[in-house]
Amino acid sequence: MPTWKPGDLQAGEDLARRLFDTLRRESEDLPGVTRKSYGDGERMAHRLLIEETKPLGVEALHDAAGNLFLTLPGEDRSRQLLVASHIDTVPHGGNYDGAAGVVAGVAAQAVFHAAGRKPPFDLTVLAMRAEESCWFPYSYIGSKSALGILDPVILNTVKRSDTGRTLADHMGEEGFDPDAVRRGASLIDRDRVVAYFEPHIEQAPVLLIEEIPVGIVTGIRGSFRYRNMKAIGAYAHSGAMPREYRKDAAAAAGELIHRMDMVWEEMLADGRDLTVTFGEILTDTEQHSFSKVAGEVHLCLDVRSQEAATLEVVRERLHVLAKEIGDRRGVTFEMGDLTGSTPAVMSEPLQDMLRVSAEASEVPYKVMASGAGHDAATFALEGVPTAMIFIRNANGSHNPDEAMEMADFDRALRVLVDTLAADWPDVINKKDA
Amino acid sequence: MPTWKPGDLQAGEDLARRLFDTLRRESEDLPGVTRKSYGDGERMAHRLLIEETKPLGVEALHDAAGNLFLTLPGEDRSRQLLVASHIDTVPHGGNYDGAAGVVAGVAAQAVFHAAGRKPPFDLTVLAMRAEESCWFPYSYIGSKSALGILDPVILNTVKRSDTGRTLADHMGEEGFDPDAVRRGASLIDRDRVVAYFEPHIEQAPVLLIEEIPVGIVTGIRGSFRYRNMKAIGAYAHSGAMPREYRKDAAAAAGELIHRMDMVWEEMLADGRDLTVTFGEILTDTEQHSFSKVAGEVHLCLDVRSQEAATLEVVRERLHVLAKEIGDRRGVTFEMGDLTGSTPAVMSEPLQDMLRVSAEASEVPYKVMASGAGHDAATFALEGVPTAMIFIRNANGSHNPDEAMEMADFDRALRVLVDTLAADWPDVINKKDA
Repeated sequence: MPTWKPGDLQAGEDLARRLFDTLRRESEDLPGVTRKSYGDGERMAHRLLIEETKPLGVEALHDAAGNLFLTLPGEDRSRQLLVASHIDTVPHGGNYDGAAGVVAGVAAQAVFHAAGRKPPFDLTVLAMRAEESCWFPYSYIGSKSALGILDPVILNTVKRSDTGRTLADHMGEEGFDPDAVRRGASLIDRDRVVAYFEPHIEQAPVLLIEEIPVGIVTGIRGSFRYRNMKAIGAYAHSGAMPREYRKDAAAAAGELIHRMDMVWEEMLADGRDLTVTFGEILTDTEQHSFSKVAGEVHLCLDVRSQEAATLEVVRERLHVLAKEIGDRRGVTFEMGDLTGSTPAVMSEPLQDMLRVSAEASEVPYKVMASGAGHDAATFALEGVPTAMIFIRNANGSHNPDEAMEMADFDRALRVLVDTLAADWPDVINKKDA
Repeated sequence: MPTWKPGDLQAGEDLARRLFDTLRRESEDLPGVTRKSYGDGERMAHRLLIEETKPLGVEALHDAAGNLFLTLPGEDRSRQLLVASHIDTVPHGGNYDGAAGVVAGVAAQAVFHAAGRKPPFDLTVLAMRAEESCWFPYSYIGSKSALGILDPVILNTVKRSDTGRTLADHMGEEGFDPDAVRRGASLIDRDRVVAYFEPHIEQAPVLLIEEIPVGIVTGIRGSFRYRNMKAIGAYAHSGAMPREYRKDAAAAAGELIHRMDMVWEEMLADGRDLTVTFGEILTDTEQHSFSKVAGEVHLCLDVRSQEAATLEVVRERLHVLAKEIGDRRGVTFEMGDLTGSTPAVMSEPLQDMLRVSAEASEVPYKVMASGAGHDAATFALEGVPTAMIFIRNANGSHNPDEAMEMADFDRALRVLVDTLAADWPDVINKKDA
């Protein structure tokens, strides 16, 4: 393990506090903060990050899409370590979702600087654009454009929710180059990248409940979703229609929900990673009544897993159940459009390095999946060795009440900086991702 | 069995067709017909019934509430047979729900008249007011006022949905006497009443599906209802919140719906009469999302049975299940207000007489419960020997598409008139109800 002088970590912690305070103050929009994608808040944050890291010897560059690359030169400049996340927030969001990862990266640069040490490879903090899809309704614009793989069509088709203007317009207006983005311009040479790290606040309260400050992420769950499933039966008199002649959409929906819940339980018992959520259930308020058998129920199903095979098995089980329940009850399940995402596995060697660092500093950690999507998924799916560190957080994210304790941030920073400063084995490369 | 000359039944059938045609024409309100409680349509119908039954030797009287009593004198004038139903309809309803019972009664009077025979006792057709609670939101105003048991408070508190004016206002405006209704005035001497019959179209398609023209009703189901049940859990991230920490209101609601459905199946297998209906299921559209565990679900439960004991058992099972499921899932079921009604048992001797009549005329019949409420329940619960005859009907009721075949009406009329004309055993009295 690297050793640090007493003031080295302090330098990183001090910078982090200053950055969080300034970010909050400069993007305050009570309750909470608002930093729109390609808006004032991102611009302010980029200027602040450039200004605060310049004294550390950091070189700042924007790519064609406006993603900010802040590079502290390393001992070996032929290779690169990335620490990345996003700066934008949802409207009236919290200060930490996204920013914590970027701040952790520059705080790590400050630690190296204070210690008078170079990182083993170039240490690049990447502040990505447009992660919160409430602004531009498309996933991972920042990480995809950083890697030069953003679908060019998106630039002219996806519009910002508040202005109605295109991504290309907003990108151009901020001084960047949508044409170059269309051509796949990128500042990232994948062969140089040794590892991608994304620290992020946990968006569920698992670490809080289990009283563990830090999570080491095994993978980012992929999903399949039927957001517009319908159970179609027939309305009938609740008192007069006998059981054998009913086509009760509510009873069919209730059974499907419950039996999918039992599938979930069974899969967990089998050691699989899975979440099953029916987030919306609605009879038709125009037609339903306390005295009518329900003729139609809208359902919304979100299933997530780190394991593509598990998603496939659960989807098959769903279809078999829907058919069996529907046939038995005279109800048709119309599944509607299928959407979803691919699970992204985090690098085992990077997870190992994070665990070793955490244990060396006696930082308790939990090995866990990420249920929410992150830019890290884009890098992992492109074959870049990727890892995520979760930081304990109360009250969820995407709301003004996010509550990360700075002591927990400091613990995550310690794990990160120790890992960055570690003796990097030759085995870490994209073949192992 | 009584014998009739060829033209006797024809006289009743002809009158019935004429009455249905005139009622439909005079209350047409496309699509369908509208006969408001204490409105034009009821007034028109009463005049029509009085006019058409006068030549039969029928005496017409209105009680204080405006219920119409049309009495054909019997051999024994000290006792009375009632054939009753209502004349009002829902807005844009069908021509038969209610009217079929009243028309069957006067058609029976026409059969006796054509045959030159007196019925064994006074044969009174009772056209009751205000059965469709869409107009005055209170159950059985007509039958309760006819029996002198309408809660006096109702007269000034219940208002007609279209005018906002009170029941007393509307009663007075039609020339009747709300003060006398308050005092419990009634034209019915219960000691005189031998039997109450209510023919009615079936409101479910059971007779249609089973290809049986007539139903002999065993009882009118009572109910208990939790119209505002809530499952209260906690909203959480659908991908990130693990199963063990969820308080998933949708999963809890789904399990409760499914397990109550299993209770229903078990009770039916046990020979009990029961319906279980969750007619409304709603997550909160302001808060729910495909990517959130549901924090709240509104449920509406309607349970019906002919058997008070079954209602009680099912209600206990519901509470045990709600507690067990809720505790296990960290979800609270708030049951909300309990409403309901008492099951009304139809007279066994009257059912026997109807069966004998049906068999004698080779009219196929089904012995069945009434799932919907009817004025007959008021009479039965007051100890009057009561029976109902259902008539096969397509497309349900309370809509313009009600479709009773006149051939089925004629079959029901035959069963009714043969029963009215039968040798009445002395055993039929209110002690046997």
